[in-house]
Amino acid sequence: MSLSFNLLKKDGTARRGILNVRGIAIDTPVFMPVGTLATVKGLTSDQIADTTAKIILANTYHLALRPGPDTVQAMGGLHKFMNWNGAILTDSGGFQVFSLAHDCKITDQGAAFRSHLDGTLLDLSPEKAIAIQEKLGADIAMCLDVCPPFGCDLDQLKKAVDRTILWASRCRGSAKSPTQSVFGIVQGGTNLALREYCAKELIKLDFPGYALGGFSVGETPAQMVAVLGQSASFLPENKPRYLMGVGRPEDLLDGVYNGIDMFDCVMPSRNARNATGFSSFGKLRMRNSEHRRSEKPLEAGCNCYCCVHHTRAYVHHLFMAEEMLGATLLTIHNLNYYCRLMQGARDAIDLGQFESYRADCLARFDAET
Amino acid sequence: MSLSFNLLKKDGTARRGILNVRGIAIDTPVFMPVGTLATVKGLTSDQIADTTAKIILANTYHLALRPGPDTVQAMGGLHKFMNWNGAILTDSGGFQVFSLAHDCKITDQGAAFRSHLDGTLLDLSPEKAIAIQEKLGADIAMCLDVCPPFGCDLDQLKKAVDRTILWASRCRGSAKSPTQSVFGIVQGGTNLALREYCAKELIKLDFPGYALGGFSVGETPAQMVAVLGQSASFLPENKPRYLMGVGRPEDLLDGVYNGIDMFDCVMPSRNARNATGFSSFGKLRMRNSEHRRSEKPLEAGCNCYCCVHHTRAYVHHLFMAEEMLGATLLTIHNLNYYCRLMQGARDAIDLGQFESYRADCLARFDAET
Repeated sequence: MSLSFNLLKKDGTARRGILNVRGIAIDTPVFMPVGTLATVKGLTSDQIADTTAKIILANTYHLALRPGPDTVQAMGGLHKFMNWNGAILTDSGGFQVFSLAHDCKITDQGAAFRSHLDGTLLDLSPEKAIAIQEKLGADIAMCLDVCPPFGCDLDQLKKAVDRTILWASRCRGSAKSPTQSVFGIVQGGTNLALREYCAKELIKLDFPGYALGGFSVGETPAQMVAVLGQSASFLPENKPRYLMGVGRPEDLLDGVYNGIDMFDCVMPSRNARNATGFSSFGKLRMRNSEHRRSEKPLEAGCNCYCCVHHTRAYVHHLFMAEEMLGATLLTIHNLNYYCRLMQGARDAIDLGQFESYRADCLARFDAET
Repeated sequence: MSLSFNLLKKDGTARRGILNVRGIAIDTPVFMPVGTLATVKGLTSDQIADTTAKIILANTYHLALRPGPDTVQAMGGLHKFMNWNGAILTDSGGFQVFSLAHDCKITDQGAAFRSHLDGTLLDLSPEKAIAIQEKLGADIAMCLDVCPPFGCDLDQLKKAVDRTILWASRCRGSAKSPTQSVFGIVQGGTNLALREYCAKELIKLDFPGYALGGFSVGETPAQMVAVLGQSASFLPENKPRYLMGVGRPEDLLDGVYNGIDMFDCVMPSRNARNATGFSSFGKLRMRNSEHRRSEKPLEAGCNCYCCVHHTRAYVHHLFMAEEMLGATLLTIHNLNYYCRLMQGARDAIDLGQFESYRADCLARFDAET
């Protein structure tokens, strides 16, 4: 197995570790920028690296449709295809099948659905999800799971958990790549008994890492936080814990507080394209006229390319004129900010001061927003 | 005057020179990337500099609408506003008033028209065009000229030339900036007598540089080339000559051959956004399926960021998936190619081999396209 995890320190339940992937040492807790289609939208791979990100996420569902796993494999795998020398994690495609695809039908065998692009009938089984991810060649692959909608009835939630466990076993069994590590995904919504059951069953399969799926699917942040710590506590201490698709800066702080090591979310990049910036002092609405002649950088003290070279006035102008450079610059800043937030969390855990770091961050957000 | 021009060498009528602007030595003949709204679409200023461009063009009409000259001035001028340390030339806005704006009415006083964005009634006079450009703070400003449509009758062409001369005189008289040089623009369509007359009248005003306007407005390349050499010959030897808005790589070679020193065109950047690449071997249609699994760079031997780091397959994928990085990477390559084409022209003139350089370039284009 090419992946290892060293838990260096705990500060309360917050964890400081190092995830070693293919010779790359990734300090955790860590945020992974999303590069859905083998591109973090609008950024060159050098610009991604400049955010200090060492691991990014790509989407199996999207890449399976375009350009297709065989093409990515023929081009030498995702790293070479997109010229990214850092680590890559691919999700299994399950979440997109349920949220994006049309006419989705699920059986124990797998999911049958239609492409959201052209309606082509497709299917995804646990074995196929692993086979596709092996062709994509990411360092970390995810099991195909069943992600039920928030608020579904207990019966549906149980069925999703049982099928997730069944599929995890088949994913584990079918994985053949010596260079790819497969993580299990715990489902169970906000039901702690089901979360615990699912975690225990997955732990029997001895995955090198575990994710918490099924959060950020419609529940409130408070509903997630209420069960997050216990959900994480069901997972082995010595394995990395990944909270999928979450979230806002405050959610990341909550996640770290509750013992999560890895995060991904489209928010910093997607919101950047909609002119919303993130900073230590809260959100920035870059179309707001207050920025029209502001000589300030997006965030004082930020050393990202945008903040070092450009004023708020320029970024505002780019968005008002619908210039694509606006999205690029703001994505650079937002990802830089997310990585910086995690760097701060790591430093604080090292010093045994995570709780005050979190409180300080939250107080600053509130001061501005 | 902060601008000087040294004609270093002639090879036939092709010219090799150095344009000195604000301490920046710009080797000519030179191509100027277009940064309409204070941004070369999709490129950071570092990425612009990486194309080897030392001077770019911005558009007075567009910037007058958004963010407005007062805002640019308040932000320290265009260079600071867009973080571009190279030289900047602004056109006068005349071409856009005639081609983009609505309900345009021209008198000797100036042009009255409606914004193409929101229909606001606006006006532009020679004095105002200069005042706006002084606020924008470019190193080189252009006179407001009248650019008649191709194929208009002789009377309309004469009137446009007379008004262009009248306005040039008023531009010259109203220019006050010690750090901005104003170039005159020769009109006259494909009528050589009018071109000569216009040039002679403008030369009386002793501009530090002269442009040929009114080309690439609907005439065929052959119709332009038929009069280009003579049109250029009416201009002073010791002043830079700028062919506005032209054009394709072969047009640039024709221009250099006919004694032009400066060029600008949206083609390399605009076509890049439409997935068309330029190379020494002709055009590349990046959506073409032939590139789907091509491990080749866009152009063998090109050392631009795209060619060094990415395959045609990846650029193809980005365009098929409508990912904005495709436009950025292809713009980087195309501008790099245009700058490289001009570097080759300069080197060839230095060696007294421009005619064979041009013939070789044209033969290679034809081999592929």
